[in-house]
Amino acid sequence: MNAKTAVFRREHFNAAHRLNNPSWDAETNNAVFGKCNNPHFHGHNYELIVKVTGHPDPDTGYVIDMKLLSELIKTHVLDRYDHRNLNLDCPEFATLNPTAENIARIIWEMLRKQIDEQLDVQVRLYETERNFVEYPA
Amino acid sequence: MNAKTAVFRREHFNAAHRLNNPSWDAETNNAVFGKCNNPHFHGHNYELIVKVTGHPDPDTGYVIDMKLLSELIKTHVLDRYDHRNLNLDCPEFATLNPTAENIARIIWEMLRKQIDEQLDVQVRLYETERNFVEYPA
Amino acid sequence: MNAKTAVFRREHFNAAHRLNNPSWDAETNNAVFGKCNNPHFHGHNYELIVKVTGHPDPDTGYVIDMKLLSELIKTHVLDRYDHRNLNLDCPEFATLNPTAENIARIIWEMLRKQIDEQLDVQVRLYETERNFVEYPA
Amino acid sequence: MNAKTAVFRREHFNAAHRLNNPSWDAETNNAVFGKCNNPHFHGHNYELIVKVTGHPDPDTGYVIDMKLLSELIKTHVLDRYDHRNLNLDCPEFATLNPTAENIARIIWEMLRKQIDEQLDVQVRLYETERNFVEYPA
Amino acid sequence: MNAKTAVFRREHFNAAHRLNNPSWDAETNNAVFGKCNNPHFHGHNYELIVKVTGHPDPDTGYVIDMKLLSELIKTHVLDRYDHRNLNLDCPEFATLNPTAENIARIIWEMLRKQIDEQLDVQVRLYETERNFVEYPA
Amino acid sequence: MNAKTAVFRREHFNAAHRLNNPSWDAETNNAVFGKCNNPHFHGHNYELIVKVTGHPDPDTGYVIDMKLLSELIKTHVLDRYDHRNLNLDCPEFATLNPTAENIARIIWEMLRKQIDEQLDVQVRLYETERNFVEYPA
Repeated sequence: MNAKTAVFRREHFNAAHRLNNPSWDAETNNAVFGKCNNPHFHGHNYELIVKVTGHPDPDTGYVIDMKLLSELIKTHVLDRYDHRNLNLDCPEFATLNPTAENIARIIWEMLRKQIDEQLDVQVRLYETERNFVEYPA
Repeated sequence: MNAKTAVFRREHFNAAHRLNNPSWDAETNNAVFGKCNNPHFHGHNYELIVKVTGHPDPDTGYVIDMKLLSELIKTHVLDRYDHRNLNLDCPEFATLNPTAENIARIIWEMLRKQIDEQLDVQVRLYETERNFVEYPA
Repeated sequence: MNAKTAVFRREHFNAAHRLNNPSWDAETNNAVFGKCNNPHFHGHNYELIVKVTGHPDPDTGYVIDMKLLSELIKTHVLDRYDHRNLNLDCPEFATLNPTAENIARIIWEMLRKQIDEQLDVQVRLYETERNFVEYPA
Repeated sequence: MNAKTAVFRREHFNAAHRLNNPSWDAETNNAVFGKCNNPHFHGHNYELIVKVTGHPDPDTGYVIDMKLLSELIKTHVLDRYDHRNLNLDCPEFATLNPTAENIARIIWEMLRKQIDEQLDVQVRLYETERNFVEYPA
Repeated sequence: MNAKTAVFRREHFNAAHRLNNPSWDAETNNAVFGKCNNPHFHGHNYELIVKVTGHPDPDTGYVIDMKLLSELIKTHVLDRYDHRNLNLDCPEFATLNPTAENIARIIWEMLRKQIDEQLDVQVRLYETERNFVEYPA
Repeated sequence: MNAKTAVFRREHFNAAHRLNNPSWDAETNNAVFGKCNNPHFHGHNYELIVKVTGHPDPDTGYVIDMKLLSELIKTHVLDRYDHRNLNLDCPEFATLNPTAENIARIIWEMLRKQIDEQLDVQVRLYETERNFVEYPA
C-alpha cells in the first residue's frame, strides 16, 4: 500500500484584534504586549493553510475534494472571522487572548469536527509574513 | 547625461480600520461598504513601497541613501500608523474615509515634505496581495 | 486638485494553450515556438492584474469599488478563460495566437468596454513568475 | 553525532491536464470533477519542491550536491512533464487520474530510484499557490 | 493600430560586493556606507527584471521571443555577474561604486546594445525584497 | 491537555561566502564546487526561519514572545553574519565549509543555547528561493 499523502489549502481573512489578558490590569497588559495591546485594536491579513493527511480515494485520486475543503474553511472559519474584530465579535476570544497560537488552535478545533476522523488535520496561520504558527506541532 | 533612476523601499505596518462616510447614515454606509463597514473594525498588514526618482549622486552612486529613506518612512509613517486604529488614533482619518486610495495620498503628502524637491516621490500601498493602489498615478 | 490615483486588482485563472500560427506549416511552427507548440497543449496559472486610474470619488474615497472591479473581471475574463483551452474553447483565439501579449490585449479590450471612459485601464498578465506582459505599455 | 539535515530544491514545469476517471461515464466525471473535467484540458504552472534528508558529507558539507539533484529532477521529471499534456503525452496517466496527489506520488517513485537509499526523499507539489500536496506525508 | 505592449523577463544572479568610493579615505567610506563598506564584502541574490516595449510581430504575436531575451540576459549579464565579486571580478566596477543604481544602469547599457532599436528597454534590479531600483526611470 | 504549538519567526541577512575545503587543492575544490568556489567570493540574501515548539503559556497565549525571539536572532545570528564574509569574518567557518547545511547547523547550535530547554528549536535557511535546508531534519 502507498504511504499517506497530505493536501494543503490556503485561504485568508482580514481581522482586527488586540492582545490583552482580562485578568491583568492595564499596566501589566501594556508591559507584556506592548503596541499589540492598543485598546483601539490593530489588524492583520491572516493567511491560513489547512493540511489534511490520508490515503487518496482510488476512484477520485483525492485525499479530500479541495472544493469541499475550501467550502468547509469558508463556512466554519472565514464567515466567522473575515472583516471581524476577534475580541469583540467572536465570543471564543472574549476571555481567550487572540494570539496567533490561540487562533490557530481554535480554528483547528472547529475544522477537526468537520473532517472525516480517518484524516489528520493541521493548521498553519500567518499573522504576518514573518510571524506564523502551526497547530498541532 | 544619464537618464534618471528610480529607487524603491518597501516597509510594512499593521493597522485596524473601517470604511465609513460620517456624513451618511448607517444604512447607506453598510450598503456601500459592506463588511468593510463593520463598526468594530477589521485590519490589514499594509505593505508600503516608496519610489524616489532622480539622478544618482556621482560620489555615492545613491539617488537617496536607503537607510535615510527607511528612517523617514519609519518616523513619518510607521510610527504613526503601525499597530494603530486609523479611524480612532489618527486625526487625519477622523473625517476622511481610510480607503487605500486616501491612505496612500496622505502618506505621500507626509513624505513629499521630507524629501528633496528635486526628487520625485510616489507611493504604492498594498491593502492585501490582491488590492493595491498608487499615488500619484 | 489632487493627482489621479491608480488602483489594482489581482485575479487568476488556469488555462491550457499552445502557440501556433495556423497559416504556417507544422515544421515552421515547431521551429519558431518549440515546446510551446506541443499539439496536445500545455498550461499555466495565469495571474492577472488590472489597473484602473482616475480621481477617487469624494464620497466613497474609491477610484472604483474593488468588489465591482473584481466582479467585472470574473464575469468578463475568468468565466471565459478559467479551466478552459484557449485555442479550442475561445473563438477569439481560433486564428489569433494565444501569446501572453495577445491574451493581455484581448482582456484589455473586453474590460475597457465595461469601465467608465473617464478611467484609464491597463492589464498586466503573468504567464509564469518569470514571463509577464503589460497592455497598453 | 549531529542530527540529520534536510535539503530542498525547487523546480517548476508547465503542463496541461484534465481530471477524469475513465471507468466512469461523462456525467459522473463532470459531477465529481466539475470544470477540472473540461475535455479540452486546462493547465497549471506546477512548482515542485524535492526534499532530501541525510547526514552531510564531512568533506563537502553537502547532503547531496544541489546541481546533481537539480539535474536528476530535470532528467526524470521536467523533461517528461514540462510543456506536456499529462493525460495524452504521459502513459502513466493514461488510466491514472492526474490529480496533484497522484502526480506527486509518481514523481516521488521516479526520484526515489535515482537517489542513494540512505537518503530520505519527499515531494511537495504546488498545483496553484492555494492547492498543494506532499508525498509521503 | 494597437498600442504598444511591454514584455518582462525575470532572471537572477548571486554576487558579492562592497560599497566604496576609492577616491575617499576609509573613515569617510565607513561613515557613508556603514556595514555595506565591509572590506571583506557581503553579497546578495539579485533579481533582475528586463522590460522590452514595442509592437508584437503579427506573425508570432511576440514583442520579442522570450527565449531569445532570456539568452541575451544570460550571455551579457548572468555569465558576467553570477557567482562573481562585482568589485574584484568586473572591471566596470573597479572605480564605479556597485550600488544597485549603478549596476542597473550598466546592465541596461549592455542590453540596450543587443536589442532592436525599435524596442524600448528598461531594467529593474532587486538587491533585496525591500530595496530595488529601475533604470531608466 | 492541548497538543504542542509551533511558532515561526522569519529574519534575513546578506553575506558573502565561498565553498572551499581547505584540506583539498584548488583543482579539486574547483571540480567539486564549481562557480561556488570563486576565490573572490559571491553572496546571498539568506532568509532564516526559526521554529520553536512547546505549550503556549496560559497567561500570555505565547509559546515564546516573538519580540524576544526576534531579539535573540538579531543578537546571536544577524549581528554576527549580516553584511559579513562568512569565510573571513566568522571564525567558525575558517575551517568549516559554509554550505547552507553547515550554516544552518551552526545557527541552530547558537540559538539552542539561548532558548528554554523545554522548547524544541529547528532552523530553516534559504540560500536562494530554490535552494534551502532544515536542521535538525
